[in-house]
Amino acid sequence: MLSELTIKEFLKKVASDSPAPGGGSVAALSAALAASLTEMVANLTIGKKSYDDVGDEMKAVAQGALRLKNDLILTIDSDSNAYDDVMAAIKLPGNSEEEKYLKEQKIQRGLKHAVTVPLDVAEYAIQVMELAGKAVKKGNKNTVTDGAVAVMMARTAVLSAIYNIKINLKAIKNKAFIDKTSKRVKELETEALNREHELLLNIDL
Amino acid sequence: MLSELTIKEFLKKVASDSPAPGGGSVAALSAALAASLTEMVANLTIGKKSYDDVGDEMKAVAQGALRLKNDLILTIDSDSNAYDDVMAAIKLPGNSEEEKYLKEQKIQRGLKHAVTVPLDVAEYAIQVMELAGKAVKKGNKNTVTDGAVAVMMARTAVLSAIYNIKINLKAIKNKAFIDKTSKRVKELETEALNREHELLLNIDL
Repeated sequence: MLSELTIKEFLKKVASDSPAPGGGSVAALSAALAASLTEMVANLTIGKKSYDDVGDEMKAVAQGALRLKNDLILTIDSDSNAYDDVMAAIKLPGNSEEEKYLKEQKIQRGLKHAVTVPLDVAEYAIQVMELAGKAVKKGNKNTVTDGAVAVMMARTAVLSAIYNIKINLKAIKNKAFIDKTSKRVKELETEALNREHELLLNIDL
Repeated sequence: MLSELTIKEFLKKVASDSPAPGGGSVAALSAALAASLTEMVANLTIGKKSYDDVGDEMKAVAQGALRLKNDLILTIDSDSNAYDDVMAAIKLPGNSEEEKYLKEQKIQRGLKHAVTVPLDVAEYAIQVMELAGKAVKKGNKNTVTDGAVAVMMARTAVLSAIYNIKINLKAIKNKAFIDKTSKRVKELETEALNREHELLLNIDL
């Protein structure tokens, strides 16, 4: 698993002349880092006397962020695997009509997977933004910059995942799938930009 | 070293109820990830026939990104250590006038370090943005989304580092240092936002 690599090893693997892991896995990691920072802000708020009134809410934030972090760790690998599957399908033989048909089917199935994985990443990252927003607004004021970093890392995860969705959608032939996905992508994009803008306005340094 | 931790371990360490590593180290990692993606785009361009005319430029991009990545890996730790030093100074005794003076000196020295480390991160990240921009504009078109992710991760690294600079500047007493740093921070902030905006406009998906 990619998340079992050391940070140094992962950075080296990304930098190599192999396309995976690439931007998709980095997007997933960015969202996981945002979830971790959110969890930290909540953990540094829970049990503090002056934040007694938000203790329960911060416990829910910490639990939600932990769950999302674990889901996102899995998508670091899924994104890389989805890419490899598409590449493997593209290399299949296409000599007979039957081979061509099977090849195209496998490519399309692979591409759909290479869209649904970053779509999951974007959906998770939007949820991280929501929790990070609560942490910024109600959490320990001493950690407000950590909350701000969480918001920005999650925003960049959403937008990065969307780039990966869009490029793979271009090769997909199922129009209903394209339309449905594009609609959700537009919503996620707008939400990520608006949430970041709104939350950072709350932080006055 | 934090970069010797596995990704899973690092995420857990960030999430814990200890303030370091926090947003500052995550900012450094975000910039390092951007550098790795930039290196990858350059590596996937070098040696490709249709990109022969940009081969030398992409070799320079790959080398520059590798160097910045290595510098940034070190700042993941430096940021965390700088924070710990400030915390240690704050806990020093301040019973006599002499102790108070020494304590304040150590706090101020620690805070300055806690400003110069994220300032380095922001400077490196701006340089990563410049290289990522070349990769997006002239590199292998098949990896354009990886270049876009690099640009956004570097932008978020600059802005995240700036939050950490600003919060630590608030407790610093040397006015000349504050003025000089604030001026550079403003420039870096504007440059990061403009560069991201300009580069993403070039990508039409």
